[in-house]
Amino acid sequence: MSKWKPVDGNLATPRGFRAAAVRAGIKKPAADGERPLDLALIVSDSTETTGAGVFTTNVVAAAPVILSRQHLAQNRGRARAVVANSGNANACTGQPGLRTAEKTTHAAAKLLGVSPHQVLVASTGVIGVPLRSELIVSQLPALAQNLSADDASAVAHAIMTTDTFPKCCALATRLAGKPVHLAGVAKGAGMIHPHMATMLSFITTDAGIAPPLLGKMLRAAVNASFNCLTVDGDTSTNDTVFVLASGLSGVQVRSGTPDAARFLAGLTELCETLAKMIARDGEGAKKLVTIEVHGARTLADAERISRAIANSPLSKTAIAGSDPNWGRFICAAGYSGARFDPSKVDIRVNGFALCRRGLDAGFDEAEAKRALDQQEVTLRLDLHQGKAAARIWTCDLTHDYIAINASYRT
Amino acid sequence: MSKWKPVDGNLATPRGFRAAAVRAGIKKPAADGERPLDLALIVSDSTETTGAGVFTTNVVAAAPVILSRQHLAQNRGRARAVVANSGNANACTGQPGLRTAEKTTHAAAKLLGVSPHQVLVASTGVIGVPLRSELIVSQLPALAQNLSADDASAVAHAIMTTDTFPKCCALATRLAGKPVHLAGVAKGAGMIHPHMATMLSFITTDAGIAPPLLGKMLRAAVNASFNCLTVDGDTSTNDTVFVLASGLSGVQVRSGTPDAARFLAGLTELCETLAKMIARDGEGAKKLVTIEVHGARTLADAERISRAIANSPLSKTAIAGSDPNWGRFICAAGYSGARFDPSKVDIRVNGFALCRRGLDAGFDEAEAKRALDQQEVTLRLDLHQGKAAARIWTCDLTHDYIAINASYRT
Repeated sequence: MSKWKPVDGNLATPRGFRAAAVRAGIKKPAADGERPLDLALIVSDSTETTGAGVFTTNVVAAAPVILSRQHLAQNRGRARAVVANSGNANACTGQPGLRTAEKTTHAAAKLLGVSPHQVLVASTGVIGVPLRSELIVSQLPALAQNLSADDASAVAHAIMTTDTFPKCCALATRLAGKPVHLAGVAKGAGMIHPHMATMLSFITTDAGIAPPLLGKMLRAAVNASFNCLTVDGDTSTNDTVFVLASGLSGVQVRSGTPDAARFLAGLTELCETLAKMIARDGEGAKKLVTIEVHGARTLADAERISRAIANSPLSKTAIAGSDPNWGRFICAAGYSGARFDPSKVDIRVNGFALCRRGLDAGFDEAEAKRALDQQEVTLRLDLHQGKAAARIWTCDLTHDYIAINASYRT
Repeated sequence: MSKWKPVDGNLATPRGFRAAAVRAGIKKPAADGERPLDLALIVSDSTETTGAGVFTTNVVAAAPVILSRQHLAQNRGRARAVVANSGNANACTGQPGLRTAEKTTHAAAKLLGVSPHQVLVASTGVIGVPLRSELIVSQLPALAQNLSADDASAVAHAIMTTDTFPKCCALATRLAGKPVHLAGVAKGAGMIHPHMATMLSFITTDAGIAPPLLGKMLRAAVNASFNCLTVDGDTSTNDTVFVLASGLSGVQVRSGTPDAARFLAGLTELCETLAKMIARDGEGAKKLVTIEVHGARTLADAERISRAIANSPLSKTAIAGSDPNWGRFICAAGYSGARFDPSKVDIRVNGFALCRRGLDAGFDEAEAKRALDQQEVTLRLDLHQGKAAARIWTCDLTHDYIAINASYRT
């Protein structure tokens, strides 16, 4: 079975794609007066391009989420472009907000010679502040003119908000003897940040995939990656993942074939890599934390426990402080709603036993502290109740989270 | 209808009760070498005393919770005494932990001349560390000897962990022409703190109440008070509320009577006062925050929204920083699972409008900051969807929460 290999590249590594980013003045200038990149355009030149999206489940959905959902329903999965901005979420902005999103798709469609329904939009930033369409529409001609493979790496920068580094990843493999590529960018999640909110990810591939299969694979890959990510339990108004498939590799991926399984594996690996980058870059985070729950009675129980620990401020501050306070982890498991026998639980951190059969493992404090004093911490609970397992990524909760979030808007 | 009035008093203000507290060496000495109070005994001298308890719903229940549940089932609501310690939760301590709790109740019962089943126990402190029964049993004779009305105010101190002030409250009224009293103590909650964990509250009254009615009223009062309290969403292994009713006021409260309604009102008021003290004293907290949701379709929807906001780190850091970031509140409402139309939502903070009909209310930033810059902050959401309402108390999330929790155990 062909493996996917990381390659040095960007959203334009898959054939058929070009992209560009500009400084549109939606984000405030930096302290040194420099205007940051805040508007990006991703385009596929292939008329055969298919697209799919996964969106926030929040009842309060931003205008670009509402409009992109409509467009994907109306264009029957024939998407051609994505326009994304940072600095303003265009959420809780009412009818004027929807009109801004519509004007954006119409203007981009005209410039690119495609239907407005084939343009998808995404925004991230402060909630409840009107987003003037002129800021975006006036920049679209420049964006369309600058579209290039070279400029594509700027997209990861243009969607950054509180992220401390751009997140991108590219993979390559061979299917049916031909090279096939996947690439993606993402921005900070979890600690959604309504001044600069949301998890966004945009993925390109030169595989050819029919819309229903592409949508199904995107949902499966997102479930196994971005949905296994929690930073503070908040789900934003704008969370969006888009995938565009140009088909220009000449390889058509069909449902039920080995190639479909291979493509899904690559798409999942790409999403997983981006999700881990997001967890590592959680606001104020110093550590990438993986919570693994094994031996649960049911998958639901395993997920409940992993999520309860990952969202427990007490557990996350303990990890931040390298404090082997396993009582907090078993306590969070206990209130998760999962059924288990506490007297059978084993807890290890980076392989080091803290708790055996529900009791203190009699560990050396200094050694336990060393096991926790890593940039990557895996906390593993073995319940010995059944065979179900779950895994979730998160980060530690540090002073900097409070500092970043206590006074962002004002 | 008779009103309950606050009175200066302690657990021994209701007739029939005495209490005492000692330094048993379960807690570590303070930095200045002083040993803190960490063991308390509350006793009723009336053979007619009834008792009831409400316990944590955590699957991982501490030994004292397991044993006290058994005792209340076995003594048919005829409890006479409570032994409580801080400094060790006696949770995740296996059979030896249960034996320590049993030895405690047996030793206390012998000293007091009651059945072991009539003794209830409660612990708070670090999880997973064996609790030596000698530490408690050796101190019980001194405790029994020092039982007094005067010493009763020490109980609130002996159960303190990360609390910054002792929490007690006493109320008086007249029922059937006779004076009746209620008194209670409580300790820090919410930000359960497994080195020194858990919410505990002990309540005494000289009303006479049959066990089934007492249990029913305690559950109702706890639901309207302690269960409306969240500091960080964690539910501990040891949470316990006990009430003992001596009957020595000469007033018997019977089910379905006006006096029963009056007594329940007083019990609820007492619990509410203690719950608010706990919220105000949340670890690192600077503000008492009340989240009110009005106009929800259903009570469940109103509760989901109030809880989602109260447990949202982003909302709580915004309040800590007096940042009128209403997008965070509506976003948390949106992912709570409740159904509502975002375009109908009004949001006010201490009466000051931040959001009207889902849109920015066009407020003055400095005025909004002033509205948030109070020690008591009431955040009110009006959904305009129906008639259901809910309220919850919490606190803001500050740097100090991280400082207190990141390195407690080590």
